[in-house]
Parts: sequence; C-alpha cells; structure tokens
Amino acid sequence: MSLITFTTDFGIVDGFVGTMKGVVAGINPGAGVIDITHAVAPGDVWGGAFMLKCSYNFFPEGTIHMAVVDPGVGSARRAIAVKTSRYLFVGPDNGVLSLALAAETVLAVHSITNEHYFLRNVSQTFHGRDIFSPVAAHLSRGMAVEDLGPLVTDWRRITIPTPKVERGELAGEIVYIDRFGNALTNIRESDVRAIIVEGAELTAWLAGQKVPFANCYQGVPAGTPLALIGSSGFVEIAVNGGNAAESLALRRGAPVVVRHSREREDR
Amino acid sequence: MSLITFTTDFGIVDGFVGTMKGVVAGINPGAGVIDITHAVAPGDVWGGAFMLKCSYNFFPEGTIHMAVVDPGVGSARRAIAVKTSRYLFVGPDNGVLSLALAAETVLAVHSITNEHYFLRNVSQTFHGRDIFSPVAAHLSRGMAVEDLGPLVTDWRRITIPTPKVERGELAGEIVYIDRFGNALTNIRESDVRAIIVEGAELTAWLAGQKVPFANCYQGVPAGTPLALIGSSGFVEIAVNGGNAAESLALRRGAPVVVRHSREREDR
Amino acid sequence: MSLITFTTDFGIVDGFVGTMKGVVAGINPGAGVIDITHAVAPGDVWGGAFMLKCSYNFFPEGTIHMAVVDPGVGSARRAIAVKTSRYLFVGPDNGVLSLALAAETVLAVHSITNEHYFLRNVSQTFHGRDIFSPVAAHLSRGMAVEDLGPLVTDWRRITIPTPKVERGELAGEIVYIDRFGNALTNIRESDVRAIIVEGAELTAWLAGQKVPFANCYQGVPAGTPLALIGSSGFVEIAVNGGNAAESLALRRGAPVVVRHSREREDR
Repeated sequence: MSLITFTTDFGIVDGFVGTMKGVVAGINPGAGVIDITHAVAPGDVWGGAFMLKCSYNFFPEGTIHMAVVDPGVGSARRAIAVKTSRYLFVGPDNGVLSLALAAETVLAVHSITNEHYFLRNVSQTFHGRDIFSPVAAHLSRGMAVEDLGPLVTDWRRITIPTPKVERGELAGEIVYIDRFGNALTNIRESDVRAIIVEGAELTAWLAGQKVPFANCYQGVPAGTPLALIGSSGFVEIAVNGGNAAESLALRRGAPVVVRHSREREDR
Repeated sequence: MSLITFTTDFGIVDGFVGTMKGVVAGINPGAGVIDITHAVAPGDVWGGAFMLKCSYNFFPEGTIHMAVVDPGVGSARRAIAVKTSRYLFVGPDNGVLSLALAAETVLAVHSITNEHYFLRNVSQTFHGRDIFSPVAAHLSRGMAVEDLGPLVTDWRRITIPTPKVERGELAGEIVYIDRFGNALTNIRESDVRAIIVEGAELTAWLAGQKVPFANCYQGVPAGTPLALIGSSGFVEIAVNGGNAAESLALRRGAPVVVRHSREREDR
Repeated sequence: MSLITFTTDFGIVDGFVGTMKGVVAGINPGAGVIDITHAVAPGDVWGGAFMLKCSYNFFPEGTIHMAVVDPGVGSARRAIAVKTSRYLFVGPDNGVLSLALAAETVLAVHSITNEHYFLRNVSQTFHGRDIFSPVAAHLSRGMAVEDLGPLVTDWRRITIPTPKVERGELAGEIVYIDRFGNALTNIRESDVRAIIVEGAELTAWLAGQKVPFANCYQGVPAGTPLALIGSSGFVEIAVNGGNAAESLALRRGAPVVVRHSREREDR
C-alpha cells in the first residue's frame, strides 16, 4: 500500500478534502490518505509549512506528502514535485514544502506542467482537486517525478527565524500556538544544550515574566506556567492544566528569552 | 475495494461518525469510508444536498454515497436507496440526495424497509448508525438495492433556485458560503456563457456594489473583491487574500446580478 | 485487516492526529485507524471516557481502542493495556478507559513499560505519538499484551454517577451535551422501565420545567422540548428542530428528574 498525506487550509466544513480523496481513489484505489491537518489558517503558508515540518518524518519512507496552502492558485505561481532520499512532496512553489525540505536530502525538484496527469477540466480555484491530488495519486502508482515537468532549482524557500545568541542568552520568539494553548518557540533543544552551564538553572522570560523549566506539564503546580522541550524539539511555553496562550496573552511573534541563572541571583 | 462516502450534520465533536465507521467495519471490513463533510448545519437539508452535489461525481463509479441530514429521524419519513447509472445513494427521503440525483440517470429508487439489514436494536434518534450505515455496508458487499424494500417513485426533490434572465442580465442569489468566505451563487458557467457579448466585460453586482470578473483570486489587487467561475461551476464572489462573506456582509439568499457592460458606460 | 480507534483531546487543528497515524502506518501498514473523536475538551478525562463508552462496542471484535486524554503526560502516572473478552484497550491509567471497561469482561490489565515497543525518542509531552500509537500498532500485528509489562490490578476507575430512586422518582443529572445541543443524562432506559406504572405518563423535570416524553424528535411540535431514550440508552433532553442546551440553558451537572404522573394530576 502506498501512503499520501494532506496538509491544507481547506478546512473540513466544506467538501474540499473529501472530494480530493475521491479523486485519489479514482486513480489509485489502493492508496491510503492520511490528513495531517486542514486547519491551517486561510493562506497561511508559513503555518502550513510548519505543520508539515513537525509531522512528515513520522511517516514511513516512500510516503507522498501533499501540502496545499495556495493563495496564488490560478496565477502564474509554479507547482512542484520534490524527490528526497526518503519521501516525495507535492505542492505549490510558495515555500509550503520548504521547512520540511530543509531537513531532507533533496534529490530533484520538478515543475508540474504535464497536463496528462491532471483532471480533464482544471479550475482556476481548486488545484488541490484538479492538479495536486491526481499528481499525488499517479506518483503513488509509481509514476516518476521526472514525468511531471522540467527540473527547477530556484524553488521558493522560507525559513524558521533563527534565535539570537548573546552572552549565553537565547533570544527567540513564539512561532506557533497549538490546540492546548501551548506556545512553541523557534528555540531548539540543541540551542538550549549549547548554553547550559553546570550548576545553573534554565529559565524562560516573556515580557518580563520569569517561567521555570520543567520536565513535564505537571512538573509545576497546577495553573502555573512552565517552559519545556516540546514534542517537536522546540522550547514550548505551557501552563499545567491550563491554556498558556490565553492566560499569558501570547501570540505568534512575541519574544521569548532563555537563559541560565544561578539560583541565588534570581530569587 | 468498495467505497462509501458520508455527508452528514453529525459534526466531529461527538463519536457519531466514528461509531458509524465501526458499524461499517463490522459488516464489511474491506470497505473504505471517505468523509465528504459532517459540518452541515444541524438539520440543513439543502446545505447537505448542495455539499453532496458538489462532491459526489469526483468519486469512482460504484461508490456508495450516504447522506444523512435527518431532522425527521424516527418519524414516518421514509428512507431510500437509489441506483443510478454510476453510483448508489442512501439517505432519508427528504431531498438530501436529490440535488445530486438531478444530475444522474436514476435507474431505481427503493424504500428501505427490510430490517434484516439494520442493526438489531434500532434507536429513534440515530438511524445513521442503526439503518443507513449497515445498509451502505451491505450494499458495498454486493447486496442488491431491490432487496431493501419496494420501488418508490414519489421521492422528495428539492432544487437549486434558477437564476432569472432579463434583458441579458442574470439575476441570481448566494446559495452557499465556504470556509474561505467565498460566496457561491446559483448562476452557472453555462448561464454566463449564454449572455456573453463580444467586446463587453462581465461584471457582478451585489447591493449596488460592482465587482469585476477575473480568472483567479490574484487577478485583482489584494484585498479587493472579484467574481469568478468557481470550482463547482458556479459564479462565486471572493476577495483576493480576504474573506468576502465577512468584508462584504454576504449571506445565503442575498441577490447577485451578472451583466455585461461596455467599458466606457461603466467607468 | 486489524482496526485501531483513536479517542483523544488532541483536536484536529494541529498535526497531532495525523502524526500518530503516520507512526501506526510505519509499524503496521495494514492497520486501519478510525477516529472516534479528537474533540474531547482539553484534559477532560471523564468526557473522553464517556465518548469511548458510547462508541466502542459498535466496532468489530478484536478492535484495539486507544484513548489518550492525558493531562499527566510525562509524570509518574502509569500507562496501561487491557485485554477484555472482545477488545484490547490502550491509554493512560487515569480512568479514561474505565467507563468502557465497566461494561466488558476484563481478562488482564498490564502496565506499559517495555520500551522496546516505544518510539526511540520518547518526548515528555506527546505519549500519544511516542508510546500509545506504537503500542497499539504492535498489538494490531499480534504482539501479546503480556509483553508490554507487569500485570496490575489497582488501575483507576471512574464512574457515571448513579441516579437516585425515591418514591418512584428518578433523580439524575446531565452528563454530556452533544453537537445538536441534546443533553444526555445519567438515567438509563432500564432505570426508566423500573418506575413505569401502567396508565401513567412519564415526564421529565428540569429546574421546574415539565418536559414530556416522546418517541422521536418530531413527536412534539417544532421548537418545543422533549425527553426521549437517546441512541446511547440514556434519557436525553432535546428540542424538536432546535438546540436544547442553548434554549433551556442546560449544562453538565444540572439536575433532571423523571417521574410518572396520571394525566389529570398534571394538566
């Protein structure tokens, strides 16, 4: 069985996602489709790219990852198919694939131009249905990426902002807020390891408020904030049993500083 | 593999949908189930019928489409199974199947009365679980529609209101608003083609506001409204990078007029 | 094919659920996963337990039910795998499995401690991905529950509060409100049968308001409230064509009394 994932901003209120699965089933009845998310904010390319990046590598090798957050649908923006050492990726060339690709060994990127693999009537507004789903389905049947169109090298990259390191301090920001109100930052576990000093405690600071690090949500009293290394490997701000984004008024882009401190200095 | 689609107003907060999939798996473990949507507004038969109509024909021949928006569950309203030249349909006889059926060659409509194919205990409130899912699962195993009950001819039809054509103008209305705030009208691409005049531009008017036609969302400046032929073949009002329903205060039933105009007259 | 169900509070906005399905597919590509719900309120163990209880027994024998509502993730709380005469269950040992288990013949409960069946890197915040999904996937390949860890007997039970019976009256409460605004109580069909008196009518009372029993939603005039035996076997308060929770201001914990009354006394 071959596996296709979907990451989009199509929502699940309308029939968009079901329709795409119907298209896949019509081309490859044996393909399995797994939804990563369809709740990316409308047109939020960065958000979709981050969701894909956090999830894609938990899928078995050979999975075809399709990501469609595509405010430029119908315009001159390109569509691309990407072969890496472990996966295939399909989506618009607007960066939505690029956070995942940054962690992969990219073997080839092809522009998707071969209409033979599209639905017969291509709309100007729903390439997820008319182009990306049929292309993903054909790839799942073994079609070569090369058949889709010419090689391209100038595909669009977007990035996760890099935290700044100054005098042993990490200055980062909130990049994503999840369903629980946990705020993910751009500070990675490896960044934190690099500033650890033996005998010192790590603390996070946001807008003047000090937040202690803990190993799990219940590592602090109920209702109080903590910082920890979240499941995607980024420093995360949470509240034990609560919603950190709400109670601390956090939003994407807000600054977060991580530093170590001898206990006596900070108390 | 045989394929069943679900279109309901059951939502995905409760376990209704998962439970129905469990029932299907118990009868035909080999059946695949694809959700079209479960977010039809509670009891909105027309909305469910429209969702099914926009999606069903992207599925492979032989698919069994089950639609359950069923405010009359448990009352005397009939349940029906329909065989068309390409698909099977199952649902309450309240019109929820009829917008899709209007575009199909209907071969036979049967009342669902044979309790042999129901769950043993039929509740008065959840026929999606107790009747429609088991019937769909048995159909996916090859049971004949005729086995379900007697032929009926007076099944309930609902319709998409037809736009009026007067002096080369199309007077329609908004019939559906999607996740992006795009407003779908009842004006079809073929209606528009019929009034096209060479050398004239098409424009849409809503509550006195003129909206230009474009080929894609980015065919107008960011943040400004446009009209285009949407992916379901209806004229759609959108805002490039925005939410038309919110920024133009659009709702179902609001009038939309499409007409052509020589540039000089309108500027 | 082997079947796994998911019941969680992970929501479907983030990629949590898709990621878990990727983990399952990597271990057992032949396993089917069915979502019961991911919309349990964050950390609401009781709500998750109730959802699982209402849905699990509509799945075929041999299904593996995984429920993860896990505010104590990463702390010392145990994880358990349970073998009953018909199913397997996997989840944290906080009671989330126990409402379903109360209706099953439990054969063995094992603590999940064998890291051989976990993902290589176990986070402190997402055991659904790192422990429960891989364990469920291995179980679906035939791994014995005994391989997961030692037998335990003191696993956590939570219960549905029992309604009180006094002078032929049932005093219960609202325990769950569904997507339609129907309010499920803890009063079972069997409780009601026990107080039925021939020639008397049943009525439900909530905060002084009398609500008649009916056989289906349309058994009362549109817009008026009714009580009926819902699809999960509990007395349910609804409004025909409306939202009972909203129009009657119902919430979890509100008292509901069911009693019989001769017509002449109540009118």
